[in-house]
Amino acid sequence: MGGPVLDIAAQPECSEADRSVLRDRLAAVRRQTEALAVELTPEDQAIQSMPDVSPTKWHLAHTTWFFETFLLCRFADRYRVFDANFAYLFNSYYEAVGPRHPRPQRGLLSRPSAPRIADYRDCVSAAMDRLIERADGATWAAAAPLIELGIHHEQQHQELILMDIKHVFSVNPLLPAYRTPLPGLARMAAAPPPDWVAFAGGLDAVGHDGAGFAFDNETPRHKVWLDPFRLAARPVTCGEYLAFIGDCGYRCAEFWLSDGWATVQQQGWEAPLYWCRDGQDWSIFTLSGPRALRPDEPVCHVSFYEADAFTKWAGRRLPTEAEWEVAARLAPSRGNLADSRRYHPAPDAASGDAALPLRQMIGDVWEWTASPYIPYPRFRAAPGAVGEYNGKFMSGQMVLRGGAAVTPADHIRTTYRNFFPPSARWAFSGLRLAEDA
Amino acid sequence: MGGPVLDIAAQPECSEADRSVLRDRLAAVRRQTEALAVELTPEDQAIQSMPDVSPTKWHLAHTTWFFETFLLCRFADRYRVFDANFAYLFNSYYEAVGPRHPRPQRGLLSRPSAPRIADYRDCVSAAMDRLIERADGATWAAAAPLIELGIHHEQQHQELILMDIKHVFSVNPLLPAYRTPLPGLARMAAAPPPDWVAFAGGLDAVGHDGAGFAFDNETPRHKVWLDPFRLAARPVTCGEYLAFIGDCGYRCAEFWLSDGWATVQQQGWEAPLYWCRDGQDWSIFTLSGPRALRPDEPVCHVSFYEADAFTKWAGRRLPTEAEWEVAARLAPSRGNLADSRRYHPAPDAASGDAALPLRQMIGDVWEWTASPYIPYPRFRAAPGAVGEYNGKFMSGQMVLRGGAAVTPADHIRTTYRNFFPPSARWAFSGLRLAEDA
Amino acid sequence: MGGPVLDIAAQPECSEADRSVLRDRLAAVRRQTEALAVELTPEDQAIQSMPDVSPTKWHLAHTTWFFETFLLCRFADRYRVFDANFAYLFNSYYEAVGPRHPRPQRGLLSRPSAPRIADYRDCVSAAMDRLIERADGATWAAAAPLIELGIHHEQQHQELILMDIKHVFSVNPLLPAYRTPLPGLARMAAAPPPDWVAFAGGLDAVGHDGAGFAFDNETPRHKVWLDPFRLAARPVTCGEYLAFIGDCGYRCAEFWLSDGWATVQQQGWEAPLYWCRDGQDWSIFTLSGPRALRPDEPVCHVSFYEADAFTKWAGRRLPTEAEWEVAARLAPSRGNLADSRRYHPAPDAASGDAALPLRQMIGDVWEWTASPYIPYPRFRAAPGAVGEYNGKFMSGQMVLRGGAAVTPADHIRTTYRNFFPPSARWAFSGLRLAEDA
Amino acid sequence: MGGPVLDIAAQPECSEADRSVLRDRLAAVRRQTEALAVELTPEDQAIQSMPDVSPTKWHLAHTTWFFETFLLCRFADRYRVFDANFAYLFNSYYEAVGPRHPRPQRGLLSRPSAPRIADYRDCVSAAMDRLIERADGATWAAAAPLIELGIHHEQQHQELILMDIKHVFSVNPLLPAYRTPLPGLARMAAAPPPDWVAFAGGLDAVGHDGAGFAFDNETPRHKVWLDPFRLAARPVTCGEYLAFIGDCGYRCAEFWLSDGWATVQQQGWEAPLYWCRDGQDWSIFTLSGPRALRPDEPVCHVSFYEADAFTKWAGRRLPTEAEWEVAARLAPSRGNLADSRRYHPAPDAASGDAALPLRQMIGDVWEWTASPYIPYPRFRAAPGAVGEYNGKFMSGQMVLRGGAAVTPADHIRTTYRNFFPPSARWAFSGLRLAEDA
Repeated sequence: MGGPVLDIAAQPECSEADRSVLRDRLAAVRRQTEALAVELTPEDQAIQSMPDVSPTKWHLAHTTWFFETFLLCRFADRYRVFDANFAYLFNSYYEAVGPRHPRPQRGLLSRPSAPRIADYRDCVSAAMDRLIERADGATWAAAAPLIELGIHHEQQHQELILMDIKHVFSVNPLLPAYRTPLPGLARMAAAPPPDWVAFAGGLDAVGHDGAGFAFDNETPRHKVWLDPFRLAARPVTCGEYLAFIGDCGYRCAEFWLSDGWATVQQQGWEAPLYWCRDGQDWSIFTLSGPRALRPDEPVCHVSFYEADAFTKWAGRRLPTEAEWEVAARLAPSRGNLADSRRYHPAPDAASGDAALPLRQMIGDVWEWTASPYIPYPRFRAAPGAVGEYNGKFMSGQMVLRGGAAVTPADHIRTTYRNFFPPSARWAFSGLRLAEDA
Repeated sequence: MGGPVLDIAAQPECSEADRSVLRDRLAAVRRQTEALAVELTPEDQAIQSMPDVSPTKWHLAHTTWFFETFLLCRFADRYRVFDANFAYLFNSYYEAVGPRHPRPQRGLLSRPSAPRIADYRDCVSAAMDRLIERADGATWAAAAPLIELGIHHEQQHQELILMDIKHVFSVNPLLPAYRTPLPGLARMAAAPPPDWVAFAGGLDAVGHDGAGFAFDNETPRHKVWLDPFRLAARPVTCGEYLAFIGDCGYRCAEFWLSDGWATVQQQGWEAPLYWCRDGQDWSIFTLSGPRALRPDEPVCHVSFYEADAFTKWAGRRLPTEAEWEVAARLAPSRGNLADSRRYHPAPDAASGDAALPLRQMIGDVWEWTASPYIPYPRFRAAPGAVGEYNGKFMSGQMVLRGGAAVTPADHIRTTYRNFFPPSARWAFSGLRLAEDA
Repeated sequence: MGGPVLDIAAQPECSEADRSVLRDRLAAVRRQTEALAVELTPEDQAIQSMPDVSPTKWHLAHTTWFFETFLLCRFADRYRVFDANFAYLFNSYYEAVGPRHPRPQRGLLSRPSAPRIADYRDCVSAAMDRLIERADGATWAAAAPLIELGIHHEQQHQELILMDIKHVFSVNPLLPAYRTPLPGLARMAAAPPPDWVAFAGGLDAVGHDGAGFAFDNETPRHKVWLDPFRLAARPVTCGEYLAFIGDCGYRCAEFWLSDGWATVQQQGWEAPLYWCRDGQDWSIFTLSGPRALRPDEPVCHVSFYEADAFTKWAGRRLPTEAEWEVAARLAPSRGNLADSRRYHPAPDAASGDAALPLRQMIGDVWEWTASPYIPYPRFRAAPGAVGEYNGKFMSGQMVLRGGAAVTPADHIRTTYRNFFPPSARWAFSGLRLAEDA
Repeated sequence: MGGPVLDIAAQPECSEADRSVLRDRLAAVRRQTEALAVELTPEDQAIQSMPDVSPTKWHLAHTTWFFETFLLCRFADRYRVFDANFAYLFNSYYEAVGPRHPRPQRGLLSRPSAPRIADYRDCVSAAMDRLIERADGATWAAAAPLIELGIHHEQQHQELILMDIKHVFSVNPLLPAYRTPLPGLARMAAAPPPDWVAFAGGLDAVGHDGAGFAFDNETPRHKVWLDPFRLAARPVTCGEYLAFIGDCGYRCAEFWLSDGWATVQQQGWEAPLYWCRDGQDWSIFTLSGPRALRPDEPVCHVSFYEADAFTKWAGRRLPTEAEWEVAARLAPSRGNLADSRRYHPAPDAASGDAALPLRQMIGDVWEWTASPYIPYPRFRAAPGAVGEYNGKFMSGQMVLRGGAAVTPADHIRTTYRNFFPPSARWAFSGLRLAEDA
């Protein structure tokens, strides 16, 4: 989901019986996307606060362009494109589909306006509904996997809408709130140190096994050798991260990778993104506006460099993605996801499967791993535009696992590989400690 | 009006009798500003397409902040500021008034929304109305010159709104039109070469003489010595500029100042801003959208570097600002100004005082002069925040004279000094040839 | 060896008997470094042609500072530093040793002059000689591993001297030659397609096994699972790379990683570094000056991005570093190394163990692998300044294997891990194809 | 002399009788240039410490190329160019003469080496000697003005050699001295406030009057009107400038031009170039190495922005270049010039015509004026390559007058116009206060 979004999917099989199910899921996901924007002004939806961020209305249009381009233009009888300019404006990065508006200039598009994009969505959603209903058997067999892919693609952009509007609001001196706060959580004391859960390692296998949908970067399932290891029972908390800051964390080169230390110096980092110090007190900016930092909630909006430096300071390390996946397969404990509408990581006790030994593996914060984002052995890119770029982002990024408080609950799974450059901080990214057994 | 706007005025005297006149003029100018934005969407008003450009809604708010800060907060009984955050958001560059939002980040302000800024304008306009009505004699004597200044300041921003929205629309691949085109002008043939008008020179004087309003940079009136010179009867046309382009204009270093040549190379300039070549044909982008280039209309959106290179190619030179002013005093011929709502320079015959020997001195295009923007001899900056920056922009810029098709007709005068950096092109800037007699 | 040099070593044991051996090796390596600079003018040795490049005299001084700082200052009785300023000037990146001159400004150091640095070298070499002779048993046990490390460190800089002076000369319009050409090689025809050598894979182990010197990044030896694979019998040649260029290689996005494609666009890459097209002919710049490109020699000075794009075009892939090492262990075939003084990769038949199925694994060109440079499982950084940065460069770089025509023959081994950022091209970097079996 | 050097001259007449005089002057000036470099190492002469700085050996070669290109290639029988590559390497900015090595990359030229450039100088000097001796009458008439120009051009580069090597040494942490200090000057107390000298103004004339050599930018002589004014009897001292620093000089926006204030912030300026604060004490870097700041010597290495801000703080202003010239014509008092070999401005009493009311007008420090560098009325550029760029630098720079402690004494005159961008500080630039009478 990092940098540019990975839009590409493996091809699950879809039977005739799935038609109405898929139609309903598509409609529900489309409505959910629109619901995310309903409280935003037209200006809120047009701003691009940094090159990585896209305006809300661009997300609304791009996800629609995806269905128009890869489904309606291919499979719908006599479909006429809504606006011939949109192919240029709302193509994200598909070189094979043609030239496109430069990413850093998405914030310059005052037109098309928010109402016109709403019309675009309605028109394409209606045409998709007709397509699903009327497609003959052969068309359906070809179209259904792409509809499935489009649904997952749109869910990725739901998370991006929340990540991006948080950044947009954070650079406005008025610090607007995206949503009103949920009722407060009681405890604010620092959390006790985490328990450690041991794993035996050995010859194992990771990657998607073929049941249900997965993106192609999760395949093929393949053998890995793992030495014995241990994982912390929960993610690192803000209180623990404060101790790192207080103990020379951002001022001592010894904890940092060389590139990370250079980034700290150049960017003047002194804390995670969205943290603000006022004398002895810390506040953070959330999608519900600014509020005091809670020591017991998972630290969030740290880069890989910061996550790695924290582990050095703590005398531990990050897990590899294979370690994380093997552990999560045994205990896929769920925490706080987008469906809670909290849109912020919650303290351990406040959510999820608290009885499991490993907690909050799924949800709350994406967990940085020690693994660069590279193709799995024998990975093959799909042919054509949809599959054109299966591997094109597999360079210079690190893998994150498990989803966050802004990830749709039915989107995440234990084999899911998210990825961002090591300096990125605007995702809801935290970490969990690992160590050799 | 260049770079940052020069907001500062000399102090005319205002009698009691002027109250209702000033109130009506203020109201009319405020309404005129709002009329400029009435067709724009909220997103149109929020975009900043380059650091020099400000969003429309920022102009709407900043001109309002000017009255609030320099009039209401000082002179209005028990006035409470509309929103305490606005001082930070809408101060342009007054260091003495306090810190302010960085200029290049004005496009990040999704909030305050367009409706809230409309409320701000209404509230301040109403309070100004009350202030003018109720001020006692001493208050009125102090306030009236600042109101006069605020009116002229707001008129400057009317021109900036038009300049800026033109740039905003120009970077949108959809190329929206700000207004529908006026009925077409008949003639499109190239204009005949201009006549030349001779001036005797000698010891003369330039600068504002004290009657009516002027900005302080137009004062004091002072002696200058001028050698005999001649001016072209009209500005350089697009057809003449095309000949320069066709004759190696942008590819031969010999015509260019060293800094200008470096800019041509770095920016890849091949024509004025908003010109677009399609094979043998040229089109231009206007506030009425794109259309074919007319060879008979004044060339516009050229930088000082381009204007100067054109004169070298033509074997002539630019006039000095003193030459221009002495000539204009004798024959202040009016062309096409903002009141025509054409918002684009018109061919010579299409407008104004065609019987005068010098035509289009006022209006159509700002005319670059050979004069750097420096203080007049014995210039004195006014004390305090309003006068704080009288001379602060008098470095690195060149003087332009005469107003353009986007300048309010009652704002421009022969002593008016506009100024921009030599590389700037988004103003409605053209040129008129001069030569030694 | 990439980016900043990895100076840090694992600790081999050194017996008393090794003293004279180590002393002689040290003296020989020191002399060899000086021999590399003997034909260079003082100006040649002072130039820094880009931030990654260091001046020759900086290398001469830095390798000397290493022995002074980590050996003489710690172990030599009453040693007085040669010049107190040199710690600041010639520390490369050891944060624990103190502040240092910024890397991009090494080319600003006209002083100390070349003769003064020669004095520095002589003084430190003599002091090292005395230290080795006179150290008592305990001192010797502590010092010997660091001397071993210093020797390998200095050999790394021998390669850097050659890489860097090649770049320095390449930016000089006079295109000076570092050395006179060796007698020409006969054949210049394109090489026939390579044979393929198959490997069975399975559970294997890679990493240094403890006999002889190794850098700590080669440890610990650890288990890996490998699927069956095949390697090309020789590196990709210039002739093969020319076919890639001719077949849209640098103009078709489909072959490229997203970051690679962006780099191609930004840098205007059209061929490997040091290649120059003149009509239909290609020449290359070598350490013997410019000459015609030979289609049969290994392609060199390609980035990881280019190597990866070539494999996509060829329908193959890069080997992982584990695959490369397992294969090389079976057949460590030697090609052309620095000791040949050719300083340029040679065609397959022209050098080395031509009888082995895999040829030129060692020497000629460093071979890019598909593996990001990360720590081996259970890797541990050594304590203190020498070990301070064991892992600090393990981010954002890719592993290369096998050494090149500028690598000292007694420096390279099959477990050796070199590393550079994926965009770097000034190393002698090429590639070998791999495929799944 | 600023930015790129203005190499171009007006054409004085030269009689036959001048031959031996000109030959001797040429030889003396050439030797003087070489004497400036005699203590520098080859590396010293190769360094380019910032884009504005050229290496010493580049100056040595470029001044030689000037005679080769504009004299020998045109007028000397059967002259063969010394090295065909040098036209590319040592052309400064003459577009008509052909392409040239980019200015910011002059520091990358390790070759040609210093000895080869010495050969080049000897060869061209000898050929010039022969040309002067053997030229027939017509050739002599054409060549002599260009020789005169070449002499003055070379003197400009003598000053540049000193300016540039000072900067080169200043960025070296070893802070080398270019020359040993002269015997110290006794007094170090702050100077008493300066007297003021009044001038009546009126209609006057400035510019070169035709007797003796002048650059063409000093012509034509033309009328100017001046209001009455006063000048300070001596330049501003370091002690006075320290008071400005201590009184919020670099931290209060109110004293600064807007561009100047932005530069202060971006560059982090807190004092003139080469000043260094150590607690309460200040030292400065000179061509004799670092030493304590003297409060009684003229402040030097300030930009126009700093000079202007100082005058605002002092309640005064800078003189215009016309005011300066009219005053200097009456009293061309000489201070300390390059011939003293002090290479640093001296306190008022320490040098020159102390009896004159205006002191140190010529020498010690170049004095910033309030005048942008623009052509004089009716200025005409000479035809051809030598005259190609007469006016090409007349944009974006400010005029300085009077020469400095590094200017050859027979090079400077009261009509001489030097010029630099308003942010430049590496020239020996100071200021003198003026005020309206």
